[in-house]
Amino acid sequence: MTALSFGDWTGQVQGDVEEALDAFLPPHNAVPHKLHEAMRYTTLGGGKRVRPLLAYAAGALFGAEAPALARVAAAVEMIHVYSLVHDDMPCMDDDALRRGKPTVHVAYDEATALLAGDTLQAQAFQVLAEAHSVPPARLVTMIRLLAQAAGSSGMCGGQAIDLESVGLALTRDELERMHQLKTGAMLRVSVVLGALAGRDLAPHELAALDAYSKAVGLAFQVVDDVLDATADSATLGKTAGKDAADNKPTYVSILGLEPSRALAEQLRRDAHDALASFGDKAQRLRDLADLIVQRKA
Amino acid sequence: MTALSFGDWTGQVQGDVEEALDAFLPPHNAVPHKLHEAMRYTTLGGGKRVRPLLAYAAGALFGAEAPALARVAAAVEMIHVYSLVHDDMPCMDDDALRRGKPTVHVAYDEATALLAGDTLQAQAFQVLAEAHSVPPARLVTMIRLLAQAAGSSGMCGGQAIDLESVGLALTRDELERMHQLKTGAMLRVSVVLGALAGRDLAPHELAALDAYSKAVGLAFQVVDDVLDATADSATLGKTAGKDAADNKPTYVSILGLEPSRALAEQLRRDAHDALASFGDKAQRLRDLADLIVQRKA
Repeated sequence: MTALSFGDWTGQVQGDVEEALDAFLPPHNAVPHKLHEAMRYTTLGGGKRVRPLLAYAAGALFGAEAPALARVAAAVEMIHVYSLVHDDMPCMDDDALRRGKPTVHVAYDEATALLAGDTLQAQAFQVLAEAHSVPPARLVTMIRLLAQAAGSSGMCGGQAIDLESVGLALTRDELERMHQLKTGAMLRVSVVLGALAGRDLAPHELAALDAYSKAVGLAFQVVDDVLDATADSATLGKTAGKDAADNKPTYVSILGLEPSRALAEQLRRDAHDALASFGDKAQRLRDLADLIVQRKA
Repeated sequence: MTALSFGDWTGQVQGDVEEALDAFLPPHNAVPHKLHEAMRYTTLGGGKRVRPLLAYAAGALFGAEAPALARVAAAVEMIHVYSLVHDDMPCMDDDALRRGKPTVHVAYDEATALLAGDTLQAQAFQVLAEAHSVPPARLVTMIRLLAQAAGSSGMCGGQAIDLESVGLALTRDELERMHQLKTGAMLRVSVVLGALAGRDLAPHELAALDAYSKAVGLAFQVVDDVLDATADSATLGKTAGKDAADNKPTYVSILGLEPSRALAEQLRRDAHDALASFGDKAQRLRDLADLIVQRKA
C-alpha cells in the first residue's frame, strides 16, 4: 500500500487514465478527422472514471503493473463511453447533455455518434488485445470476459431490458436483474480485469471480488436513482429528473427515497464485508465503495 | 483438396456457417427476447457469406480445422452484419430493404437496431475469444487483427470517409482508399484469420494473402458499383440505384460502366496471380475470386 491519500490516489489514477486514453485513441489529425475528433471529444476530459478506478484498485491488490492496468482501464472506459454515446441518441434516451457537454449527436450529428460509438467498441478490444505484458492465455480470458460483460448477457442485454421496461411496473427483483446487466456487468468486469492484469485468481478470490462488485454495482445504481430524483442538472452534468419524466422504474419509485438511501448504505457495508479476507491491501476498493455511495453527482 | 465441386463446397460451407451462427447467437427464447430475436432475424437465413467463404478457403490452404474455422467465420460475419444493420439506419443510409427482407429498424425499431448491432459486435469478439483449439498467443493476434479491421483504421474509418464524401468529387485513388478501409479491411482479415486458424504464417505467405485480398476486396467493390447501376432491387435483395440517388462517388461514376467491368476482370487476374506460389491447394480462393467478380447480385 502506497502512502498516498485516497484523494491523491484517485487524482493520480484519473490523470494516468486520461493519458492512456489520449495515447490509445486515434490521433485527431488522422483521417477520418471528424470521426476521430468525435471519439476524442466524448472520451477525453470528463467522467468520474469509476470503472478505471475499480480496475486500478483491484490491480493494486493483485500486483498488476502500470502498462497492463492502463490498457484494462482504457478498454473498460471506452466500452462505457460508447454505451453513453449510443444511449444518448434520439432513438434511445434522446439526451442533449452528458458530462456537462453537449452529447455527440448534438455536437456533431447522429451518423457520427453512431460511428464513434461503434469505433470505440472495436478500439476497446484492440487496446486490450495489445496488452503484451499479460500472458496470452490469461489475456484471452480477459478479452472473453470483456465481450461477455459488454454484450447480450451484460450491458447491451440490460439496456434492452431497460428499453422494454418503460412504463411497466417492475418488481424490485426485476429492477435489480436489469441493473446487474446494464451497469453491474461492466463494473464487475472492471474489478476482475484489473485483478487479472496482476495474476490468475483462485476461486475464493474471484468469489470475493464478485460479491464486492455485485454490492458496489447495485449501490452505484441506487445512488444514481437517488441523485436523479434529488440533484440538479448542473451538478450531475446530465439531465436530472429524466427517469421520472421518461416513466422509468427506479429504486426511488419502487422503494421510496429514504429506503433507497438506507439500501445504498447497506450495500456499502456488504461491499466492505466481501473484502474481509484481503485485509488492509483492499483499502482502495473499500474507499471506492464509500466514494460511490457518498458521491453527490 | 477435397473432391467436392466448387458449387457443392460453397453450399456446404454456407450450411456450416448458418449452423455456427445459430449456435453462437443468444437463443431467441432467452431474455431480452426482442434483442435476441432481432439479432437472429438479421444474421440468420440470408447473405452470400462471402467473408466466411474466404475464411474457409484460406483455412483449407493452411490446415485449419472445422471448430476454429466456424468461430472465425461467425465472428467476421457478425461484424459484417452489425455494420449492415447500423448502415441501414435512418441517420446513415436510411435503407428499408436488406437481403430481401425489411431492415432491422423497419422490422423492429431504431433503438433495437442500434442495440442489435452493438451486441453483435461484442458477440463477434466473444465467439472468437472462445476458439479454445487455437493456441492463445495466436488467438490474441487474431482478436487484435479483427479489432483493427473493424475499427477506425478499417471498416468504421471507411464508413466515416464514405459519409464525408457524399457530394464530393473523389479521385480514383481516394475512392480506392475509402473502399480498402470500408470493405477491404474485413475481407482481408477474413482471409488472414482463416489462415491463422490453421497455423502461423511466414511473411511471404502473409504477403501473398494480402495481395490476393487487396485485389479481391477492390474487385468486390467495383462489381458492387456495377450491380448498383445495372441490376434491379429484387435481384440485389437491397435497394438498387442508391449510390446515384445519394450522389455517392462510385467506380461507375468515375470510370464509366465498361471500364469498371474491365477493371473488375483485371483485379480477378491479379488475385489469381497473387496465389501462384500456393499451387493447386489455393483453388478455392481462386474460385472465390471468380465468384466475386462474376456474381449477379
